[in-house]
Amino acid sequence: MPPTVYVVSDGTGITAETFAHSILSQFDMKFRLVRVPFVDDADKAYAAARTINSAIAADGKRPIVFTTLVDSVSNAIVKGANALVLDMFQTFVEPLENELGVKSSHEIGRGHKKADTDEYKNRIEAINYSLEHDDGQSNRNLAEADVILVGVSRCGKTPTSLYLAMQYGVKAANYPLIPEDFERRTLPGGLTAYKSKLFGLSIDPARLAEIRNQRRPGSKYAAIENCRYEINEAEALMRRENIRWLSSTHKSIEEIATTVLQEIKMIDKATY
Amino acid sequence: MPPTVYVVSDGTGITAETFAHSILSQFDMKFRLVRVPFVDDADKAYAAARTINSAIAADGKRPIVFTTLVDSVSNAIVKGANALVLDMFQTFVEPLENELGVKSSHEIGRGHKKADTDEYKNRIEAINYSLEHDDGQSNRNLAEADVILVGVSRCGKTPTSLYLAMQYGVKAANYPLIPEDFERRTLPGGLTAYKSKLFGLSIDPARLAEIRNQRRPGSKYAAIENCRYEINEAEALMRRENIRWLSSTHKSIEEIATTVLQEIKMIDKATY
Repeated sequence: MPPTVYVVSDGTGITAETFAHSILSQFDMKFRLVRVPFVDDADKAYAAARTINSAIAADGKRPIVFTTLVDSVSNAIVKGANALVLDMFQTFVEPLENELGVKSSHEIGRGHKKADTDEYKNRIEAINYSLEHDDGQSNRNLAEADVILVGVSRCGKTPTSLYLAMQYGVKAANYPLIPEDFERRTLPGGLTAYKSKLFGLSIDPARLAEIRNQRRPGSKYAAIENCRYEINEAEALMRRENIRWLSSTHKSIEEIATTVLQEIKMIDKATY
Repeated sequence: MPPTVYVVSDGTGITAETFAHSILSQFDMKFRLVRVPFVDDADKAYAAARTINSAIAADGKRPIVFTTLVDSVSNAIVKGANALVLDMFQTFVEPLENELGVKSSHEIGRGHKKADTDEYKNRIEAINYSLEHDDGQSNRNLAEADVILVGVSRCGKTPTSLYLAMQYGVKAANYPLIPEDFERRTLPGGLTAYKSKLFGLSIDPARLAEIRNQRRPGSKYAAIENCRYEINEAEALMRRENIRWLSSTHKSIEEIATTVLQEIKMIDKATY
């Protein structure tokens, strides 16, 4: 049995779970990761502690707990469980209090992504914007876009646009580069006015053919010669038009999005 | 000047940034949060340290650094900077090594969401699935859905579906409940076969009217009486059909998604 790892949070615990996952991935072994969200009072903390204590009987070893509870009483209850408890919150709050010379609030819910805030409304607006401007569907309000991704069909524009909107409230439109553009040797109409917002994605032709074959097996669209042609033309077009671009071949959505934010100089604009 | 906070990572640093943000939100003051991604060799670590050291002159106080660098050499370089350095990685790896009786790998890139893995391909497939099954667009392959969200227009189905797909690789279809369904007093055709996958979203009528008025000001669609009617009918329908549902009024996408995962029992299915 792999050891059980509990991630206990007074909110969703999504960030803590992702973070715990990346720490655990440093060990060459399997873990069973269990998220215990919404632990926002002492009763729920006792319930969480009972769940944690029950793991030994099943696993034959004591579990690991990542806690991010802000409330000291609830946190103490969870820390009383028979487990290796790693406190992802208090561990950093104490040195910060000393450095800043102020006490922290220990108020629940402050750090969570909350509805009813302007930041949240911006995110939802950005998601709607990115959906409405997916795949060149609309030329309306392109002036509002923070970034406009261009590239051939299936090179990663849509997931990247949605991720930028969802995670950062960035309004990301995207436009396909299609054979008609290559024949005309120009960008899709309407985009030239927004050249400073353009960012290109390219991809290895063999990888592109693989992805397209999953969708339309055996089609001309998916054929390696056609993928090679489209990628050559798209890269030549982006070079001619002086558009910054990257290859998405071995990059995750998160990596592409981070590079785009760096390039459009939005990565260090955040003040909280 | 608010203190500058650097988040230094060998990957995108997105998780660390979100986590740092939630810790800093416990302090009643502003911070300038700067993400320093892709620090994956000693040269980049020296460059990061120089950036960190330059902050004092600008801010009049030493900066705060959250580091998640896995490589000991690079991490030591960053820790040499003149700052309060909080080590989000080593702090937890050491006690874990002791508990598990094994050494960690200190290999860069293991914890990142990586392209070229099956998990990653599942995420992309889920995003495509959720997009193609957004807003009742398609009845095809509903058997493949992990969850099918239902609710009136603009209650949060689309952002929740996309988030579930993007963050968890969950195939989430969504269907609008519309006046025709209320008159027929039945679920949209085709959904009854998948009742165990259905999850409903509702929303406070006043909030719904506000959201709809932003899109179609002064329309019947957005009128409070109409919103009240639709919500009453939708909740009655969900009750009659025994569909689990929640109110999205004060909930973020992350909170809705977490509750949906709990209800469809996918929250503790992860083994890494």
